[in-house]
Amino acid sequence: MSVKRRIFETLEKGQGDDLLSKRFDIFIMTMILLNVAAVILETVESVHNDYEIVFEYFEYVSVFVFSIEYLGRVWTCTYLEKYKHPVYGRIKFIFSFMAVVDLLAIAPFYLPLFFAIDGRVLRILRLFRIVRIFKMGRYSTAFNMIVTVVTKRKEELLVTLTIVFVMLILASSLMYYVENEAQPEVFRSIPETMWWGVATLTTVGYGDVYPITGLGKVLGAFIAILGVGIFALPAGIIASGFEAEISKRMREKEEKNSD
Amino acid sequence: MSVKRRIFETLEKGQGDDLLSKRFDIFIMTMILLNVAAVILETVESVHNDYEIVFEYFEYVSVFVFSIEYLGRVWTCTYLEKYKHPVYGRIKFIFSFMAVVDLLAIAPFYLPLFFAIDGRVLRILRLFRIVRIFKMGRYSTAFNMIVTVVTKRKEELLVTLTIVFVMLILASSLMYYVENEAQPEVFRSIPETMWWGVATLTTVGYGDVYPITGLGKVLGAFIAILGVGIFALPAGIIASGFEAEISKRMREKEEKNSD
Amino acid sequence: MSVKRRIFETLEKGQGDDLLSKRFDIFIMTMILLNVAAVILETVESVHNDYEIVFEYFEYVSVFVFSIEYLGRVWTCTYLEKYKHPVYGRIKFIFSFMAVVDLLAIAPFYLPLFFAIDGRVLRILRLFRIVRIFKMGRYSTAFNMIVTVVTKRKEELLVTLTIVFVMLILASSLMYYVENEAQPEVFRSIPETMWWGVATLTTVGYGDVYPITGLGKVLGAFIAILGVGIFALPAGIIASGFEAEISKRMREKEEKNSD
Amino acid sequence: MSVKRRIFETLEKGQGDDLLSKRFDIFIMTMILLNVAAVILETVESVHNDYEIVFEYFEYVSVFVFSIEYLGRVWTCTYLEKYKHPVYGRIKFIFSFMAVVDLLAIAPFYLPLFFAIDGRVLRILRLFRIVRIFKMGRYSTAFNMIVTVVTKRKEELLVTLTIVFVMLILASSLMYYVENEAQPEVFRSIPETMWWGVATLTTVGYGDVYPITGLGKVLGAFIAILGVGIFALPAGIIASGFEAEISKRMREKEEKNSD
Repeated sequence: MSVKRRIFETLEKGQGDDLLSKRFDIFIMTMILLNVAAVILETVESVHNDYEIVFEYFEYVSVFVFSIEYLGRVWTCTYLEKYKHPVYGRIKFIFSFMAVVDLLAIAPFYLPLFFAIDGRVLRILRLFRIVRIFKMGRYSTAFNMIVTVVTKRKEELLVTLTIVFVMLILASSLMYYVENEAQPEVFRSIPETMWWGVATLTTVGYGDVYPITGLGKVLGAFIAILGVGIFALPAGIIASGFEAEISKRMREKEEKNSD
Repeated sequence: MSVKRRIFETLEKGQGDDLLSKRFDIFIMTMILLNVAAVILETVESVHNDYEIVFEYFEYVSVFVFSIEYLGRVWTCTYLEKYKHPVYGRIKFIFSFMAVVDLLAIAPFYLPLFFAIDGRVLRILRLFRIVRIFKMGRYSTAFNMIVTVVTKRKEELLVTLTIVFVMLILASSLMYYVENEAQPEVFRSIPETMWWGVATLTTVGYGDVYPITGLGKVLGAFIAILGVGIFALPAGIIASGFEAEISKRMREKEEKNSD
Repeated sequence: MSVKRRIFETLEKGQGDDLLSKRFDIFIMTMILLNVAAVILETVESVHNDYEIVFEYFEYVSVFVFSIEYLGRVWTCTYLEKYKHPVYGRIKFIFSFMAVVDLLAIAPFYLPLFFAIDGRVLRILRLFRIVRIFKMGRYSTAFNMIVTVVTKRKEELLVTLTIVFVMLILASSLMYYVENEAQPEVFRSIPETMWWGVATLTTVGYGDVYPITGLGKVLGAFIAILGVGIFALPAGIIASGFEAEISKRMREKEEKNSD
Repeated sequence: MSVKRRIFETLEKGQGDDLLSKRFDIFIMTMILLNVAAVILETVESVHNDYEIVFEYFEYVSVFVFSIEYLGRVWTCTYLEKYKHPVYGRIKFIFSFMAVVDLLAIAPFYLPLFFAIDGRVLRILRLFRIVRIFKMGRYSTAFNMIVTVVTKRKEELLVTLTIVFVMLILASSLMYYVENEAQPEVFRSIPETMWWGVATLTTVGYGDVYPITGLGKVLGAFIAILGVGIFALPAGIIASGFEAEISKRMREKEEKNSD
């Protein structure tokens, strides 16, 4: 087997008894999880202060590994039928979803080396490292499943999200007109009233905004009783999509086992 | 084709290769969305102050367009079998749901021109412009679907809403008698206690009202555990109605495609 | 037809073309709804002060009507196969659910006439008038349905309510041990911590009690993510019971119509 | 029947007309419930102060009974095919789930007798007594069912919990970067922002943490609308697992009855 082929198969998800590839998968998976943990823990001041140097070196190592991985994938993608052409195939590959994720995962490190970037933007670039979590998409069924469900139920989700949005506009407009006079600071405009609308209709109810007039409370009560059902629609579609997908995969697995 | 017929078909939802009609649909749709956005943004003080003149002129243009559209619909409705009679048909049409919406969408503009209206009522009239969102009902599947679901499940919704209301009355009466003495300002009467009831049973829980006595908390806990299920009933019926409707339409579409 | 028979059929739910009985049903139904409204509105101080005399006279009339109705039912119940025996049948009838409701609906009025009752108990007796809402059970499908569903799903409800209760005990015990030291006033004992437990697990979340220590928040987060599903079980059973019952009745109705 | 056999059958769940065994089950069940009640009530200061001596003696009696029960079970477990071997069988039995629970239920009493234990640990040991609630697992269908459902749906639960966790990380990271500047005390780090994330996505919404900037509110609104559906997934899987399990058991019971 050529070196290129060997690298290609190592980078791809391990199949059969390809131990090297399987170990590489576990290695990358671990790197991703450690990176996510690092991004999260770095924001804790005490941890950050005590281990700043560790985080820094770990970032260097991670970017190095992910960069090699990215270059390897771009180099060897021509083995895939879809990206066969050495030039156009590679360009097509670079714009595929997972390759974009791979690039976004390392870009925040390289950008400041080439461009002058001020502190605020740098902070946002650090946020971008959380994007590395999506690299797990290659290995995790969970990621894979959510994409499948959203894709399959796209139309239903769109219809219900439209209804949710119309409901939110109507509820917030009404409440704004009713409560604005009594609480001009809180229900200052329809967009600001929408914050109340979302908190109420999703039943989160932080309690920072609520009607205080009699009419506002009656209106709020009706909106809550009727609207909660409407806002539960997208959730219901996602949930039923998942259950269908899960039971489908379970059936396939069982059939495979009984072969 | 006569001018009247041409206008009729333009106003109706575009069919086949009637490009003019389809473009007109998109134009009206855009006008509606911009109007909804205008009503919402106008309430934001800074936006209102900076663009007052823009909003005013946009309102003139919108009312002009929607008025022409309304007159055109009234004029040409006789092409529809249902509204064939030149007099009675038109009267019947004027009282149809969508025509009433069309009228309500422009009425707030004309009323102050003919009647002396004080500031308070004027403000409410401006609210009425949000009604223009319902004009989308002609084009959007989402609107159409919600009407279908509510109509089909009318009886179930009525039964469950009755149960919800009885539950609310019982829960609030009990809580009023238990908590009234400890918090006479908050649980002042049964109707005011209902505000607590709705917030609890829909699980919104703003936190502006809650029992503080031991007995009140025990009662509140039982009401929450048992009542949440009851209050979820109308939501469940709407959700299952939607899923049935969506999957029905998906099936119909597939069958149509496979023809 | 004898007077007794005439009274019996009038009191029973109106069948076929028995206009008198149907009108009587509507009359009693209206009386019940007005009584519920009266109990609720009486607690509003301003309404109570302005219309005290109206409420008082309405109470006299209501008790008179409901007393006549009750006596009539006891007198004529012997026409029903179940309560045929003039003595034992009537005793059995008096202890039937709806007859007990009928008695409880008027008892609060008569008790103070025969016994010396102090103010506190009198106030609770007034509460009891809300029991009149259950008299609607004879006429309303909603009431009837909730009894059917709870009866049919009794076992499932018991099992899931046990689980809910065990979950609540475990969550509250853990949280008490974790948070008690930091907030000794709020998480003072396990029973008091249960108030936090119910508010969290039903997702009401008033915000009067919540963990403030790091460990308490981690524990609270896990309890919320896992426990919410457990607490949704009884609600789910009631909901699915209702849907089954509703669709069963719809089918029966359709079959009846197609006969 | 030998004494050992008699003890074995008494400890096992009562079958057929073995009255002694059935009475023993009720006795142990009552002991467990009283113990749970004792652990809970002991934390109420006034109850604790008034009945300290009662609680102490009840603890002695309980530990005595549960110790005898435990020893009896270890002694007689060899009657079960699985634990037949007098030495290895018994060791295997001691590490079975229910035997571990039985040991944990009494261990907190014996530990301080053999080891020097400081006050803090002693308090945690007392918490451990709540573990006695799991002894009910031998008798209660509810416990049994929850284990069955979680075992059967293990994979689905894992997949959905992964999704929930990824969702929580993404939502909290984004919110941290948006709100941290405006509320540095509240959104201090990503782990601390996760407390907001859990409260929002489970819809508990205590109201101790919420975004206050415009961008934070827009982000929070989107997270709430989309995320609530995701967080409802594990709950949905548990609920549907339960319903399947319950209806399966109902069918089995009916079939048994119709034999």
